[in-house]
Amino acid sequence: MAQTARRWYLAKHANADIEADTFEFREEPIPALKDGEMLVRSIYLSLDATNRVWISTWDQYMDPVNPGEPMRGFVCGEVVESKNPAFQAGQIVAGMHSWSDYFVTDGATFSAFPALPGIDLSEAFGTLAIAGPTAYVGLINVGEVKAGETVVVSAAAGAVGMMVGQIAKLKGCRTIGIAGGPEKCARLTEEFGYDEAIDYRNEDVAARLKALAPDGIDLLYENVGGQILDAGLAAMKNFGRVVICGLISTYNQSGGPVPGPYMFRNVIMRRLRIEGFVILDYVEEMPGILQELAGWMMEGKLHFRVHVVDGLEQAPDALKMLYTGANQGKLMVRIGNEPG
Amino acid sequence: MAQTARRWYLAKHANADIEADTFEFREEPIPALKDGEMLVRSIYLSLDATNRVWISTWDQYMDPVNPGEPMRGFVCGEVVESKNPAFQAGQIVAGMHSWSDYFVTDGATFSAFPALPGIDLSEAFGTLAIAGPTAYVGLINVGEVKAGETVVVSAAAGAVGMMVGQIAKLKGCRTIGIAGGPEKCARLTEEFGYDEAIDYRNEDVAARLKALAPDGIDLLYENVGGQILDAGLAAMKNFGRVVICGLISTYNQSGGPVPGPYMFRNVIMRRLRIEGFVILDYVEEMPGILQELAGWMMEGKLHFRVHVVDGLEQAPDALKMLYTGANQGKLMVRIGNEPG
Repeated sequence: MAQTARRWYLAKHANADIEADTFEFREEPIPALKDGEMLVRSIYLSLDATNRVWISTWDQYMDPVNPGEPMRGFVCGEVVESKNPAFQAGQIVAGMHSWSDYFVTDGATFSAFPALPGIDLSEAFGTLAIAGPTAYVGLINVGEVKAGETVVVSAAAGAVGMMVGQIAKLKGCRTIGIAGGPEKCARLTEEFGYDEAIDYRNEDVAARLKALAPDGIDLLYENVGGQILDAGLAAMKNFGRVVICGLISTYNQSGGPVPGPYMFRNVIMRRLRIEGFVILDYVEEMPGILQELAGWMMEGKLHFRVHVVDGLEQAPDALKMLYTGANQGKLMVRIGNEPG
Repeated sequence: MAQTARRWYLAKHANADIEADTFEFREEPIPALKDGEMLVRSIYLSLDATNRVWISTWDQYMDPVNPGEPMRGFVCGEVVESKNPAFQAGQIVAGMHSWSDYFVTDGATFSAFPALPGIDLSEAFGTLAIAGPTAYVGLINVGEVKAGETVVVSAAAGAVGMMVGQIAKLKGCRTIGIAGGPEKCARLTEEFGYDEAIDYRNEDVAARLKALAPDGIDLLYENVGGQILDAGLAAMKNFGRVVICGLISTYNQSGGPVPGPYMFRNVIMRRLRIEGFVILDYVEEMPGILQELAGWMMEGKLHFRVHVVDGLEQAPDALKMLYTGANQGKLMVRIGNEPG
């Protein structure tokens, strides 16, 4: 059994770019287990846009990660040893912990991660840990989507966006996805079932939205912010809803405060409702949501694409991919092998 | 009886400042009445922040006023002659028409304006025509305000703001008003029942909001936008609501697109709901709302302050007062004398 754990620590806050010395890699002894604890060997680490928020000094929705603390993330792994009666050695578990190859936890944020017949652990974890529930809650609980509506999704080829499009189709909507580059746009319509795709790198998003949704957008599922959000706000239907899941385009900007959307006055002109949410607020709804998502996966109704980067030491560089759009699918780091 | 009418026309759109040649004053013959029409002698013209929106080229919530068309406004007046069976000579009516001393209308947007015993027509019209219903709908229908909540109101000494504070108190809330200058701030607490007042010209609004609402704002009733809105967004409680009634600070800005709130990311961090509304969408709810407002007025529970400018020819200059905060109360133009 491993005697030491390798772990990424936050060395300094980052409000603009992530730099070479933002994180620090350390190796340290694994402490002996106390009663109620378990030792977990990490298999996959989920990299999510919100990780970027945690390492900033902004007011945020939970405690930030401070310099000197282990970097936080959503992980799944195998229980190596357990002194917690709720978990047994050999189990696959998922929860929120650190960017580490081994870690000790009291299991507070952890639960057993069910095996889904015929579905890889990478895909199941990638879908069910964060991205799928985030897509579901934003679209259904917050956005109150209805059949027949026109739904527009930004970062539509991203981890959340690919799920939003498919769930919206399952709910009877017309879907328009926005992504960067012809390859991702082809994927939107061919792989993720979007009715239409807009390539923000090569097309005028505002003009294309007006052409594709001449009667306006009922529900805008926003992951990006900035110019993409402005194009969406300009194309909203009266009384439309804008669900703010992420504003990734604004997280890495340096040079002072980042302006909000220039079309903000449309909140009055079009009588919009703009609502933000954080998936961690929906713990109580999660069992039902996971059951519905897992059901769709088993029936082959949800297609998912993962982008796996190998090796814990790559995690900081991999995280940067989210802000350039370099990842091709849900971004994860493979820290250790799947069992068996 | 008058043979000619004097009337303001829009000469050119204004996206930035209102200029000397934005409007044009004309005198023209009063046409003979057709069946279904009436001739109205104007008494009061209401000047409202939204007038500014109508003369811009922005996408907006109703048709803009175009160059060459009479300038639009909310007016009350006395019926001089009627060929419309719904109205009789001598009646006081209110509705949406033009900046004119006499006008002919089919009465489509007009209704009889009830006399409220003991209440001046200027005050009754000022309260019930636009400002009172706007305050009510934003706070109750859109904002879903609840007793015990902390409500913050910007432009709190303005026509709408003075009503929002008082209605929020009637509903059992704690109220904090933001206005410009010590005179207006004194009025907030002494005349309009606000619990606290913040002078944005002489105080740090963000710091004062944090001090006065250390647990956060439940409901922000926004009339201003810009830095005031940013200060409010920074002080919101998790899951708070932001009702956008107006963004007057942004309507007159020249020099290109106006940025949205810099604290926009708090829509996620604090999981906010931001919702805009336009009072004209609430026609069906209006009878009940007017009855409740009139009831409060008759019981002496709503105090109102009007700022009356004399003379139709002053209307364009008076409108500019709304954007500098020069008016001391609900801004109206007296076009003609009250009857009797």
